[in-house]
Amino acid sequence: MPNPRLFSLKSDSIPRATIQRLALYVQVLEDLQREGADVISSESLAKACDVNPSQIRKDLAYFGKFGVRGVGYYIQDLIASLKRCLGIDHTWKTVLVGVGNLGRALLNHKEFKLRGFEVIGAFDCDPFKIGEEVSGLEVMCTKRLMEKSHELGVEIGIITTPPERAQRAANHLVEAGIKGILNFAPARITVPEHVVLEYVDFFHHLYSVAFNITLSQQK
Amino acid sequence: MPNPRLFSLKSDSIPRATIQRLALYVQVLEDLQREGADVISSESLAKACDVNPSQIRKDLAYFGKFGVRGVGYYIQDLIASLKRCLGIDHTWKTVLVGVGNLGRALLNHKEFKLRGFEVIGAFDCDPFKIGEEVSGLEVMCTKRLMEKSHELGVEIGIITTPPERAQRAANHLVEAGIKGILNFAPARITVPEHVVLEYVDFFHHLYSVAFNITLSQQK
Repeated sequence: MPNPRLFSLKSDSIPRATIQRLALYVQVLEDLQREGADVISSESLAKACDVNPSQIRKDLAYFGKFGVRGVGYYIQDLIASLKRCLGIDHTWKTVLVGVGNLGRALLNHKEFKLRGFEVIGAFDCDPFKIGEEVSGLEVMCTKRLMEKSHELGVEIGIITTPPERAQRAANHLVEAGIKGILNFAPARITVPEHVVLEYVDFFHHLYSVAFNITLSQQK
Repeated sequence: MPNPRLFSLKSDSIPRATIQRLALYVQVLEDLQREGADVISSESLAKACDVNPSQIRKDLAYFGKFGVRGVGYYIQDLIASLKRCLGIDHTWKTVLVGVGNLGRALLNHKEFKLRGFEVIGAFDCDPFKIGEEVSGLEVMCTKRLMEKSHELGVEIGIITTPPERAQRAANHLVEAGIKGILNFAPARITVPEHVVLEYVDFFHHLYSVAFNITLSQQK
């Protein structure tokens, strides 16, 4: 179970973009650590993350004081602090609903555990998929979500169903007492206020690529 | 080919978050249109997008004046304007490199064309995959990217390779004259300045879910 007092925030509201950048910092710092680095200056970290140095200092300031003047950041300490800040210093038990192409791709993704998330259940309502083994997990009927979630202590649910089934999947997850949902289905869904909801819509990124190409052609 | 003078910006630099929200507005407006709506108030649009109304007005203000006082937004006009702003009022010819689980999931995704992107080529360097048909496309050797891109007039490349092959895929795409890259591989890559680069990293969203659960448990 997560420690209820993991860190004390300097501010009550942290911009969503800051959280996503913190996640990026962790990823880049872990790469640097694997390459054998111990210390990094805020300028070099900024460059590696493609963010400006003042942005990094501002982002970190939400969570306390990091770095040593004239030295930079101790990589191992900064990773540990950022992971504590993000709540990923323990492993989050996660389930996935919707074992289509995308669901399979995610179940076969090797980095979940490394990044602090353990996918311990895969669910689908298609009788042809139930019982099938995908990446070491037996696909179970979505109706068993509540029973299994309680048994396994699941905290996060990932939705990879077709859009028309996303709300039903969300309802099952909410009933099962899940605390947060990551929705990959291209459909807006509603959940009670106490459930954390995030969307992954890669079309937004594709639009951003198209927009920036268009913009660069106007110059 | 995109029109070089699609719209005139009120400002030279549009925040990345604004672009992603514009994409969301298009998605929500298209859903509303399919449901038969003609006009929507900025409050209702805000609610449907889960964004506050002043944010929407601010986002749209970058691109000009939209909406009619006391009426709201004409949905069809606003969709057309936003699509023009985003550069998705024409179809972008797109290729995908890396036909693994995620690549297959994307190739089978039905919304590309609907959203303004046409995937016209799938590439992989694995000889066992070359020649295979996925979602109506014959998988081609990555070495043929340049020849095929010129032949087909490709503008955008999607990378879905394993992380260690992402940079090589990017190099092939850059050599082939591609204008923008969307990278799904969990690896930072470098491209020349004239090439637009965006990342999709769903772990950032997963971290955000974990963080917000942790935060809600501290209250």
